[in-house]
Amino acid sequence: MDTVLIIGYIAGALTTISFIPQVVKAWKMRETRDLSLAMLVLFAVGVFLWTLYGVWVDSLPIIAANMITLVLILVLLCLKFRYK
Amino acid sequence: MDTVLIIGYIAGALTTISFIPQVVKAWKMRETRDLSLAMLVLFAVGVFLWTLYGVWVDSLPIIAANMITLVLILVLLCLKFRYK
Repeated sequence: MDTVLIIGYIAGALTTISFIPQVVKAWKMRETRDLSLAMLVLFAVGVFLWTLYGVWVDSLPIIAANMITLVLILVLLCLKFRYK
Repeated sequence: MDTVLIIGYIAGALTTISFIPQVVKAWKMRETRDLSLAMLVLFAVGVFLWTLYGVWVDSLPIIAANMITLVLILVLLCLKFRYK
């Protein structure tokens, strides 16, 4: 595979999975006070639009990466409201 | 402009600027305990690779959006180490 494509896939994988440790931390600590609600909402809307964009340009990597990120951000939003 | 391009630009703008309220919050509250260090590090490396990818495919929007995000994440990392 092309080096540039590999870099793109690694970049996409990292920015997607990076929210997993944040979800685990918020879940375990039951604390989300320092997480910005505005950040979570803006990021969720942005990632939702990225998913739409992926559907439109028919790109499975964009759809998959952003749907996983969207789920993680929505879990963080739920935790944010639960553990204020 | 194409609707799909507009959606892409709005998506990119939102996921980029979403870190501004998080930086402002961490700066003002002087608290970053609930932010996951692993999330910040993984995201920073991912966004750095996205920037490389953007240079490689010669895409100014990818380079610009990811460089701004990288700066914001690096500021958050500094705040994370300063206000443990």
